Amino acid sequence: MNSEEILKLLKSVSEGKLTPETGVERLKHMPFEDIGIAKVDHHRALRQGYAEVIFGKGKTPAHVADIVRAMLRHKDSRHNILITRADKKTFSVVKRVSRAAKSHPVSGAITIERDSTIRGKGTILVVSAGTSDIPIAEEALLTARMMGNRANHLYDVGVAGIHRLLEHRSELTEARIIICIAGMEGALPSVVGGLVAVPVIAVPTSIGYGASFGGLAALLGMLNSCASGMTVVNIDNGFGAAYAASQINALAHHSA
Amino acid sequence: MNSEEILKLLKSVSEGKLTPETGVERLKHMPFEDIGIAKVDHHRALRQGYAEVIFGKGKTPAHVADIVRAMLRHKDSRHNILITRADKKTFSVVKRVSRAAKSHPVSGAITIERDSTIRGKGTILVVSAGTSDIPIAEEALLTARMMGNRANHLYDVGVAGIHRLLEHRSELTEARIIICIAGMEGALPSVVGGLVAVPVIAVPTSIGYGASFGGLAALLGMLNSCASGMTVVNIDNGFGAAYAASQINALAHHSA
Amino acid sequence: MNSEEILKLLKSVSEGKLTPETGVERLKHMPFEDIGIAKVDHHRALRQGYAEVIFGKGKTPAHVADIVRAMLRHKDSRHNILITRADKKTFSVVKRVSRAAKSHPVSGAITIERDSTIRGKGTILVVSAGTSDIPIAEEALLTARMMGNRANHLYDVGVAGIHRLLEHRSELTEARIIICIAGMEGALPSVVGGLVAVPVIAVPTSIGYGASFGGLAALLGMLNSCASGMTVVNIDNGFGAAYAASQINALAHHSA
Amino acid sequence: MNSEEILKLLKSVSEGKLTPETGVERLKHMPFEDIGIAKVDHHRALRQGYAEVIFGKGKTPAHVADIVRAMLRHKDSRHNILITRADKKTFSVVKRVSRAAKSHPVSGAITIERDSTIRGKGTILVVSAGTSDIPIAEEALLTARMMGNRANHLYDVGVAGIHRLLEHRSELTEARIIICIAGMEGALPSVVGGLVAVPVIAVPTSIGYGASFGGLAALLGMLNSCASGMTVVNIDNGFGAAYAASQINALAHHSA
Amino acid sequence: MNSEEILKLLKSVSEGKLTPETGVERLKHMPFEDIGIAKVDHHRALRQGYAEVIFGKGKTPAHVADIVRAMLRHKDSRHNILITRADKKTFSVVKRVSRAAKSHPVSGAITIERDSTIRGKGTILVVSAGTSDIPIAEEALLTARMMGNRANHLYDVGVAGIHRLLEHRSELTEARIIICIAGMEGALPSVVGGLVAVPVIAVPTSIGYGASFGGLAALLGMLNSCASGMTVVNIDNGFGAAYAASQINALAHHSA
Amino acid sequence: MNSEEILKLLKSVSEGKLTPETGVERLKHMPFEDIGIAKVDHHRALRQGYAEVIFGKGKTPAHVADIVRAMLRHKDSRHNILITRADKKTFSVVKRVSRAAKSHPVSGAITIERDSTIRGKGTILVVSAGTSDIPIAEEALLTARMMGNRANHLYDVGVAGIHRLLEHRSELTEARIIICIAGMEGALPSVVGGLVAVPVIAVPTSIGYGASFGGLAALLGMLNSCASGMTVVNIDNGFGAAYAASQINALAHHSA
Amino acid sequence: MNSEEILKLLKSVSEGKLTPETGVERLKHMPFEDIGIAKVDHHRALRQGYAEVIFGKGKTPAHVADIVRAMLRHKDSRHNILITRADKKTFSVVKRVSRAAKSHPVSGAITIERDSTIRGKGTILVVSAGTSDIPIAEEALLTARMMGNRANHLYDVGVAGIHRLLEHRSELTEARIIICIAGMEGALPSVVGGLVAVPVIAVPTSIGYGASFGGLAALLGMLNSCASGMTVVNIDNGFGAAYAASQINALAHHSA
Amino acid sequence: MNSEEILKLLKSVSEGKLTPETGVERLKHMPFEDIGIAKVDHHRALRQGYAEVIFGKGKTPAHVADIVRAMLRHKDSRHNILITRADKKTFSVVKRVSRAAKSHPVSGAITIERDSTIRGKGTILVVSAGTSDIPIAEEALLTARMMGNRANHLYDVGVAGIHRLLEHRSELTEARIIICIAGMEGALPSVVGGLVAVPVIAVPTSIGYGASFGGLAALLGMLNSCASGMTVVNIDNGFGAAYAASQINALAHHSA
Repeated sequence: MNSEEILKLLKSVSEGKLTPETGVERLKHMPFEDIGIAKVDHHRALRQGYAEVIFGKGKTPAHVADIVRAMLRHKDSRHNILITRADKKTFSVVKRVSRAAKSHPVSGAITIERDSTIRGKGTILVVSAGTSDIPIAEEALLTARMMGNRANHLYDVGVAGIHRLLEHRSELTEARIIICIAGMEGALPSVVGGLVAVPVIAVPTSIGYGASFGGLAALLGMLNSCASGMTVVNIDNGFGAAYAASQINALAHHSA
Repeated sequence: MNSEEILKLLKSVSEGKLTPETGVERLKHMPFEDIGIAKVDHHRALRQGYAEVIFGKGKTPAHVADIVRAMLRHKDSRHNILITRADKKTFSVVKRVSRAAKSHPVSGAITIERDSTIRGKGTILVVSAGTSDIPIAEEALLTARMMGNRANHLYDVGVAGIHRLLEHRSELTEARIIICIAGMEGALPSVVGGLVAVPVIAVPTSIGYGASFGGLAALLGMLNSCASGMTVVNIDNGFGAAYAASQINALAHHSA
Repeated sequence: MNSEEILKLLKSVSEGKLTPETGVERLKHMPFEDIGIAKVDHHRALRQGYAEVIFGKGKTPAHVADIVRAMLRHKDSRHNILITRADKKTFSVVKRVSRAAKSHPVSGAITIERDSTIRGKGTILVVSAGTSDIPIAEEALLTARMMGNRANHLYDVGVAGIHRLLEHRSELTEARIIICIAGMEGALPSVVGGLVAVPVIAVPTSIGYGASFGGLAALLGMLNSCASGMTVVNIDNGFGAAYAASQINALAHHSA
Repeated sequence: MNSEEILKLLKSVSEGKLTPETGVERLKHMPFEDIGIAKVDHHRALRQGYAEVIFGKGKTPAHVADIVRAMLRHKDSRHNILITRADKKTFSVVKRVSRAAKSHPVSGAITIERDSTIRGKGTILVVSAGTSDIPIAEEALLTARMMGNRANHLYDVGVAGIHRLLEHRSELTEARIIICIAGMEGALPSVVGGLVAVPVIAVPTSIGYGASFGGLAALLGMLNSCASGMTVVNIDNGFGAAYAASQINALAHHSA
Repeated sequence: MNSEEILKLLKSVSEGKLTPETGVERLKHMPFEDIGIAKVDHHRALRQGYAEVIFGKGKTPAHVADIVRAMLRHKDSRHNILITRADKKTFSVVKRVSRAAKSHPVSGAITIERDSTIRGKGTILVVSAGTSDIPIAEEALLTARMMGNRANHLYDVGVAGIHRLLEHRSELTEARIIICIAGMEGALPSVVGGLVAVPVIAVPTSIGYGASFGGLAALLGMLNSCASGMTVVNIDNGFGAAYAASQINALAHHSA
Repeated sequence: MNSEEILKLLKSVSEGKLTPETGVERLKHMPFEDIGIAKVDHHRALRQGYAEVIFGKGKTPAHVADIVRAMLRHKDSRHNILITRADKKTFSVVKRVSRAAKSHPVSGAITIERDSTIRGKGTILVVSAGTSDIPIAEEALLTARMMGNRANHLYDVGVAGIHRLLEHRSELTEARIIICIAGMEGALPSVVGGLVAVPVIAVPTSIGYGASFGGLAALLGMLNSCASGMTVVNIDNGFGAAYAASQINALAHHSA
Repeated sequence: MNSEEILKLLKSVSEGKLTPETGVERLKHMPFEDIGIAKVDHHRALRQGYAEVIFGKGKTPAHVADIVRAMLRHKDSRHNILITRADKKTFSVVKRVSRAAKSHPVSGAITIERDSTIRGKGTILVVSAGTSDIPIAEEALLTARMMGNRANHLYDVGVAGIHRLLEHRSELTEARIIICIAGMEGALPSVVGGLVAVPVIAVPTSIGYGASFGGLAALLGMLNSCASGMTVVNIDNGFGAAYAASQINALAHHSA
Repeated sequence: MNSEEILKLLKSVSEGKLTPETGVERLKHMPFEDIGIAKVDHHRALRQGYAEVIFGKGKTPAHVADIVRAMLRHKDSRHNILITRADKKTFSVVKRVSRAAKSHPVSGAITIERDSTIRGKGTILVVSAGTSDIPIAEEALLTARMMGNRANHLYDVGVAGIHRLLEHRSELTEARIIICIAGMEGALPSVVGGLVAVPVIAVPTSIGYGASFGGLAALLGMLNSCASGMTVVNIDNGFGAAYAASQINALAHHSA
């Protein structure tokens, strides 16, 4: 089948109906464009307006600065730049590369905002259980915003004081997607999932001690949630949850 | 808003249009019925057109039949009924309760379809790695369909033969949400997630032996995926993945 | 050395410097006063009025029957007899030993009630999350009752439908001790613990699949609960929770 | 009851004694005020006389000081204030906020005692196995005292020298609730539980090395204890155990 | 670059130097033959002369028979067929499809030998520690042979009787690749690896009880081996080890 | 040194004091008989008088019978034969091979006693915590006896009733080596180890449920015991403990 | 009751029917003979001549010095003093308390030798696999020596170079008890256990990386050893192994 | 057979054809040279031309320098020297021992190249998933090269951007052995294994966070790979993988 299409194209070239140059162009955009896979990332970026992201942890300040510089060089790109889990030193170096760099010390994120267009179709609400979960929540919040979404937060509404959560039911219901962040026993998403009909993405955090085993307790809790329809990301992965939420929020009315 | 409704009611009482006693009754059954939380489930069902679901495992055939009977009694509800993980005996008993019951032996599901309206906005694609993962894939597929979604499948496209997957790239790109099911090392969602820009929900399965530890290997693999934006559900939870996908597919253009 | 002290004491008795009676008193308050330990179990039974308990699992019907027979032989004891996790065959054999034996097939318990005195000071409320947790809940309920407590239950009030729980707040508040039973993510005790000021004993159950790892998820969740003051027992240990609850409920106003 | 209050209010509106507007206001602040759930914490505090507690770990000294300041501002509250797991720097900052602040370096606790009333009905005895467990034991002891309980301790009575424990049997028997703290193999609570008839709350500690796996060995040991009626809290959770003990010790003779 | 090559080709077609048909053929075998990926499996089979393999476990006898029938239909293929982990019933059904089917009850394998050519360059030696490991050893042995290798075995030479192993040193030294199979503590490969200079592939087995945790002890032992150059496969994966050994044994003198 | 001995021997051969044939024989039985390693097992048996042992689990009755037959054929050996973990069917087959075979259904052991000489220097005492641990205890007891030791038992002396253990202190003190068997939390060896000065070998059992994780809790407990000098064997390994105890009991006054 | 017996006895003494000396004898063998428990530790020390031991880790230098000072104060005791896992600072403080203190920096031990009598009946041989295991080996060696044993070592004889071990067979055979120390896969004790007939105590170490999981791999390997009669202690517990070895080495010819 | 050779030798001695001294020498180098095992390492080195390797981690700079010095002293050996996981300080000390020492700071390796002969028969390709995996990849690359192999690398070709990998298919196909390094979910080897027919050795890395559990996720993923014929080494063990690859690459055409 593919061969037939190629044959047809080559015959057109052979018959002079198509210049070789146009033939190459057509071939590029045809079935054997498996080739084109290499551009997928680029296309996704264009369609979703998301930020270029650098995972800062484990990279030297100089390394991060290099990547940022390379990103800024793409003059025609106006994507936001998000650096997660960076330390103070990295920020001071990045600041020298771009005056627009902004530090968010709670989550360790650095942002370079170049495009404030809202592309997401509704609001992403970031809900967190305890004050210790806020760094992860902030990472999620910043990611969602840098990727072109309206994003709010609702902090310190753990399940042991269920009234605090219930008082905010209207905010929960108004959200289009909820990112629910909790350490320790990770029960919050189960309760939130039972109160709303929108997608809930659960983020376990490594907050806790003893038998929390670095977030394992929260992770297992969320995976076993009795609230149908909840999905889960890795421990402390605020970025990943917001990325997924942004993808959902970017869905066109009909299939992409 | 709530306050306005209460004010209206109290004015009626004040004007004698309503006795205090009736007022109390009305208050009890009104919006501030936090109280009203109890009806949330019902409301969600109405909004999403999803099926009533019974988790069959661990329930006696008689118990399942009783629940089905109760569901059918609600004359005005036309919801589809889905029973997951049921055995042959349960089917034969349910069949006696409803002639419309249909058995799906691969996944152990039973469906009673009463409403074939498509409510989801795009197609949910169920992708699975190996033939042994098909029972879980079928559970996901049936759940998606019973909840009012267009749903297709793509089976046996494991990463060790990456060409099989790449040959189906158009199907991947046409989907609005992808449910990606894999046992053993659970690598499929990472590859799929790198090929598409739509949400990918990963389902680890317990397929494997030795160091698969009942699906743990696949689960950890998916949680640590290098493909941003993937979310994960419990091992073998085809139902949960489809439920989440259906919630996403049901999202209105603007915030719910 | 000890011998020397005793010898000195006995010499004093021998020499008439000490009456034998004072000698006994002195001996009692000396190093060897560890004495009475052997009778502790017996004393505890008398004081608390609890049941004699046989853990049925792993014992042959004949073995269980022998123990029951031995218990019934103690004519002056009127303690209730509770056999947990017994099968049908065990019941039929026990029934032959005592006409009063009663089978509780949901939990697999057998009870022989000989004393219906209420000794506990308040009500023990057994709350469970899902219908599958009921066997463990029933074990807790029967244990509490056989040990002389008033005990009620509240079933199927999982956190994903928080309203169902909130509707029963008065029952929660009226209880003196709450036993809270949940499988899967085990979040119920956290929510209940936040609603009441009385002791909550959490029982994780092995209900679940995949990443529930036989109750490990629920257990870790409960141990990491953000609700202060909750304590936890072993997976599926309804008996142990009720035993602990009964001990608390038996506490006299002042220290025992 | 609630209904009665509402009826009374509505009658006042009906009779013109109350304008509908005032009625709305009153309703908002009445029993159905969510329904007071938001005040539950407050009520519990009043009833139990417990301390306000701050988990110090992971909070900056400034943050802790802010919370303490806010607590002290509630002029009418005379609750004790307990800060757990604080470092030296936090203490020096808190000391500046309140002259009454007292440092307990072994456990890292800071206490501000404002109310020395004894409310608990009996003595809480804190028993620990090894000298390394003392920091956790002290946390439990201070928590119990700050919450208005008489609390004693019995240190270094591990099971490998059972005689040391047996020599203190009278202290064990005089306690109303026992908190039993042990690392390594965590066997102490099993032995203590067999010696007394009062509730035993077991606290595993992270003391040990190698196969203690950060307290997992002690935790599993306690959960599997053959001593009926023991309950368990998280690893190193001396606070939680004392909180639970205080709740038990506060139980009125008849159901709350 | 790719584009340039394509352009050159198309110009040749345009200039009549190449017929369109030949152009298609060339394109197929050019850089964009990613296309060709789909045939990789086929090519590998041709090159290595390996068997078609069916993992029997979890497949119905009928399903296995269908696959075998399909394999036999490819008249020009003379590959051996290997079915692993099949039961008696599967064998009796397969036997009906092919008279040449042979049962190997120890490992549960079924073989249909159609090609006895030796393609491997040296001998693969399968060494196993205990008699209980023989089923896995036999699976490895049969796989190696069905894939065209000379393969011998050396059974029951566990490390606790090191002399038994040392007596067979000449067999060890004569092998080109050694597959070393052991359950329990899995120490055999460490010792064998220290005696030879050829590749050692270690297979942990699930043989053992208690703290062997289904082969985890042997797996961890092998991964941590102090014998450099050993590699490991999944627990009980005799097939995988032999497949890898066969790939090594098939390596041409110069790079493939 | 070795070289010197060889040199001496060769000189004797050279001087005709020794025939070459005798030289070969001597060499075979000399220090460099690495050679001789193969006979080590045999020598150990002679020295210790231990039984020939067959691990019955996983072997067919016919296989076990074959091994027994081979053992009996060695006319000059009078070793006892011990088959552990055998089923009824195995016993009936073995009985046919040897009339002397005796079944021990509690532990599943079969013994063929051919030598009742006591070789051990003191008594091995097998202590177990609960009645469910008795099968493992019996395996230990039989192993100890079949290997030529005086062996007694002390059952059902768990730590939750410490007095039962203390009542038997004289038996504990009279033992030369103690094997201490416990499931659940595995605390018994810690207490026993604190009461005696002789070696204690601890055997964790898989008795328990929930968080006992198949004996893991008991195993970890024993490994972390605060009683110095205790050693541990695998879960349920009564045989191994008795084998080790027998080796200790066989130690001559001066180094072997 | 007990009191009555004692009273009767004392009356006999008082009446001259019994000499005080005979009374003491009777008392010793009566119910209250639980007595001596408190002195057991003392007795064990006398009998075995072992050292007083302080586990240094987690104790402040001052705390260690205090304990040492207290030990030295018992003028009549000439026990050796062993401090394990101490740092430099602790040594300098202890040195000030006792001039005889000696530092062993490889293992972090401090010894104060006051008695060099050899009490053990044979030689304890400490065998270790790798150079990284030497700190644990030294701890074992020092413990054995301080407890009055002849102790040698054999280092760096890992199983991947089995010849190094075999060259030292005579040393292995001459030992009365072998302590076998290994990290990584922990296979050494299996091989050693197969070469000798004396007790082998295995010590897993935390040496390794990746899947060694802090010594878990070695621990599991040793517990599952196919060499009968090996026993195991906690990870890195060189002290415990030597303590156990010393107990065995101290066993009198006939039962203690 | 052995006996016959020895007999022949002794006869020669007896007949004066051989002096006893020469006889000893011959015996040393004869069949009972099991003896000779001690030289195996040496022989292997000669045959394979591999480097002398020092595992730097945990060794002091002085210790490493001593070993290097000893290696350099063997004048006739021209082996390369490889020190893995060394720090800066170690390098500066080693540099003083050998001017030829070269530091590789990314992997922490130090190399002293003395022999650049290529002995391996084909190219070893080191493929890695993310930039964070490069240190392990470099360790593998250096090991392969120091052991006399041609070795290339292909970095940053993770599965979430499958096109990057596919673009390099020719490099994959040209390799003789592939070392595939990946952290996080460890899926890369599965995809690579499906694209090539040569041996693939997978190295899981500890790169990742949360549920990567220090590389466990990647390790389990690789062990469960659906790509037949892949083998796995320990987490972060780049050296081991390259050592194994070198052994495979050194295989002569016919069995060694």
